[in-house]
Amino acid sequence: MSLMKSWVDSANSAETPFPLNNLPYGVFSTLYSEPHCGVAIGDLILDVTALEEKGVIRIDDTNVFDAGSWNAFMQLGAEVWEDFRFALQQLLSEDVIADAKASVIPHLVKQEEATMHMPFAVSEYTDFYAGKNHAFNVGTMFRGPENALPPNWLHIPIGYNGRASSVVVSGSDVRRPWGQLKGPNDEMPRFAPCARFDLELEMGAIVGQPSEGPITVGEADQNIFGYVLLNDWSARDIQAWEYQPLGPFQAKATATTISPWIVTAAALEPFRTSTPEREKELLPYLTEPKPGLYDIELEVTLAPEGKAETTIARTNYSQMYYSAAQQLAHHTTSGCAMTVGDLLGSGTISGPTKPERGSLLELSWGGKEPLTLDTGEERSFLEDGDTLTLKGAAKGDGYQIGFGNCTGTVLPALDDPYKR
Amino acid sequence: MSLMKSWVDSANSAETPFPLNNLPYGVFSTLYSEPHCGVAIGDLILDVTALEEKGVIRIDDTNVFDAGSWNAFMQLGAEVWEDFRFALQQLLSEDVIADAKASVIPHLVKQEEATMHMPFAVSEYTDFYAGKNHAFNVGTMFRGPENALPPNWLHIPIGYNGRASSVVVSGSDVRRPWGQLKGPNDEMPRFAPCARFDLELEMGAIVGQPSEGPITVGEADQNIFGYVLLNDWSARDIQAWEYQPLGPFQAKATATTISPWIVTAAALEPFRTSTPEREKELLPYLTEPKPGLYDIELEVTLAPEGKAETTIARTNYSQMYYSAAQQLAHHTTSGCAMTVGDLLGSGTISGPTKPERGSLLELSWGGKEPLTLDTGEERSFLEDGDTLTLKGAAKGDGYQIGFGNCTGTVLPALDDPYKR
Repeated sequence: MSLMKSWVDSANSAETPFPLNNLPYGVFSTLYSEPHCGVAIGDLILDVTALEEKGVIRIDDTNVFDAGSWNAFMQLGAEVWEDFRFALQQLLSEDVIADAKASVIPHLVKQEEATMHMPFAVSEYTDFYAGKNHAFNVGTMFRGPENALPPNWLHIPIGYNGRASSVVVSGSDVRRPWGQLKGPNDEMPRFAPCARFDLELEMGAIVGQPSEGPITVGEADQNIFGYVLLNDWSARDIQAWEYQPLGPFQAKATATTISPWIVTAAALEPFRTSTPEREKELLPYLTEPKPGLYDIELEVTLAPEGKAETTIARTNYSQMYYSAAQQLAHHTTSGCAMTVGDLLGSGTISGPTKPERGSLLELSWGGKEPLTLDTGEERSFLEDGDTLTLKGAAKGDGYQIGFGNCTGTVLPALDDPYKR
Repeated sequence: MSLMKSWVDSANSAETPFPLNNLPYGVFSTLYSEPHCGVAIGDLILDVTALEEKGVIRIDDTNVFDAGSWNAFMQLGAEVWEDFRFALQQLLSEDVIADAKASVIPHLVKQEEATMHMPFAVSEYTDFYAGKNHAFNVGTMFRGPENALPPNWLHIPIGYNGRASSVVVSGSDVRRPWGQLKGPNDEMPRFAPCARFDLELEMGAIVGQPSEGPITVGEADQNIFGYVLLNDWSARDIQAWEYQPLGPFQAKATATTISPWIVTAAALEPFRTSTPEREKELLPYLTEPKPGLYDIELEVTLAPEGKAETTIARTNYSQMYYSAAQQLAHHTTSGCAMTVGDLLGSGTISGPTKPERGSLLELSWGGKEPLTLDTGEERSFLEDGDTLTLKGAAKGDGYQIGFGNCTGTVLPALDDPYKR
C-alpha cells in the first residue's frame, strides 16, 4: 500500500500523521462551535457533524454525528463503517469532482484552531497485562527472575477491570494522587501523596459492536472499531500496598489518558503482524485466525517543566504477547456482555532491551537506576510539572498512519484533600 | 419509629416489606405499559411516571421519570430526594384529603401484575471484600489461619472494579459459565464449564450524587442514595486459576443480581448501627462521623429444581467491618471521579458462626463439608436448576423495611460456546 493522494495538500506529505490512508475519528470544538465529530486529514479536520447537517453525507435516518461522540456511529456496524470510510476517501481524493469538493471545503477546520475532546464515551474500561517483557520485568523486581511470570500468564491474557470515569483525553492535566502507603519496614500505613507516580505505555482497543455470550478471536477482531494510544498513569507505592489479593484499585484510578483520534482497524489493516511464537500452546478458544497485532512504532518522551523533551523509550506494539482480539475473546468467555465504547488497554508495552521499556518502574528498575534526561535532570519516577507524551505511527511506503500525541502534565498533589 | 399508616390497607401489616415507612423505588412494566418508575406500597406499585405525566406530582422542569430509570431523579440531589419522599408519604398517608387520594388511585398497579426491571442504569460497579468473617474464612482456606487476613485488610476497605454490564435484576436466569480451569495437580489448564459455581450474599450501595476529588466519609454517606440486596455470582474454579496477580476477572463477570427495589437511605435511617470496634486504628480519612451500618437481617435460600427452598444462611448487614460510606470515601482517595448510578457491592456478609456464612465456599468449606438441604439433596456448590434467593429486612416496631427478593436460577452451561 502506498500514499493515497488528497486535494488537501498537507495530507500528501510523508511526515503527516493523517494522510488519506488514515482518516482517524475525533471530537473537536472551536471558538465558534460546540463539540462536533471530525475526521483528521493533513493539518485540517473535516467537520462531519456539519456535513451531515447539510446533507452532504447521510449515514442513516438519525443524525448519528449530532451527539459529540462516535458511539452512535460505531453502533451501526462494520458495513456502515466501511461505506463511510469509502465515501470520505472519495470526497477527499485528488480525483474528486469539483462540485463535491466545493461542498466539503466550507467544513474544514484547522487542527491548530481546534480543542480536542474525548472521541467516544467510554462504556467500561478493562486493562490487560499482556506484554511479556513488562510482566517479566515487574515480576522479577517483585519475586525474582525464577518466579517472574505468574503460572497462568502464558495461558490467559490476564486483565482486570479499570475505572471508565478516570479516562481523559490527551492534554488533560493529571493531579498527583494521595493514597494509603506503607513501606516494607513501616509498622503502620500513612495517607500521603504518591511518591512513585509512573506512566504505562499502552495501546487502547475500542469495542465497536456489542456481544452477549462468548465470541471467537475472529469475531472479536471484527468487533474492534479502532485503536488509540493509552497512558495508564500508575501510583506504584499505592499499588504495592493495596494490590493483594484483589488487584490494583486506587493506584490506577487517578487518570488514564488516551490520544484524541481513533485510528480505525481499517486504516491499520496493511500493518498487521503476528503475535510471537507461543511458549505454551494456547487453548483453542484463543486461536488467532489471522495476525492479530500491528506494526506500530511507539515512543515516550518526558519534558521537565519548561525544558525540552527527552525520548525515554522506543518500542513497538508488535511486542505484545496477546492481541486485542484475544483479550476481547477471553473477556467474553464467562458470558460477560461487551458494549459499544468498551475500552481495552493492551497492558504496558516493553521491548526486550532497556531503552524499549514502557514504564519508569522498569526504566529505573524500581528507582534503583535513575534515568538521566538530555536536559540533565535525573528521574526515577515522575516529578511535578513533568509532561509525558506518547507518540505512535505505523510506517508505510511514503506515508504513515499516525495517532496524534497522547500527552499530560503532572500537577502537584493537593495540599491536603481533607483540609477544605 | 413505629408504623406510619396508609390508606393502602396492605401497607399497614407488620408483615409487608413495603409499609409507608419504606417507599422503595423500582422500574416496572405491565401488559399495558412500557417500563415506568414506580414506588412500592403494600402489595401495590404507585406509577410515578404516570403521576408526573398527569401533573399530580412535579419534580422539576423536565420529566425525570420519563426515562425508565431512577438515575435522572438521583442526579437532582438530596433536597429533591427528601421533598419527593415527603410528598409521597403525604399522598399515601391515611390522613390525606379525598381529592389527592382520588388523583392517586388510578395510578396504582398490583405488584403481582408487574414485571420488574433494573431500577437504575449501573454506571460502574465496584465490589468490595469488607466482611471480616468472609475474608478470614476464605483466607484460612487458601493460606491457613495465621495468614488468613492480608496485611492491608484492617487498614483498607479492599475493593476491585467489577463489570457493570453483568448486573441484572432479580428474576433473571444465570447461565453457568465456561472458563479456564486448572486443578493444582493438572499440568495444563482446560476450557470447561465452571464446576464450583457459587453465590455471594452482599448489599449494594447506590451512588446518587457525583464527586470529583477525594471526599470524606460524611460526604460519602450523603451521596449514597439507597441500597439493594446483591448476589455476586462467583465461579470459584475460574477465580482460583486467574486471580493472581491482578484480581478476579472472568470469575465475577457472568452475572451480579440485584433486588428490584432501591430502599432509600432515608427509609433505613432509624436502623443505623455502628461498625465493630477497630482492631487497628484507621487512618483519619476513614473516620466515621456517625454509625455507618444498618441493622438489616439477611437470609439466603436454595431451592433445587422443583423442590421447596431451604434456608442455608442467616446473617446481618451489621457484620460488615467497613461501611459503604467508608468504601465510597476510600474509592475517591486517588481522585477517582464517582458518577450517579455507581454501584458498590459490600463484599460477602458472613457472621461468625457456620450458619451465618454468605457463600457456599464458606458453608461447604471449599466443598469438603457439603450441606444437606431440608429436601435431602447435598450441595457443595450450585447445581443446574438451583434457585438462589436473598431476602432482607430491617425490623422496626410493628413494621419492617423490606427489600423484596433477589433471586436467580442457574441454567446449565452452553453445550460448547464455540460450536455454533
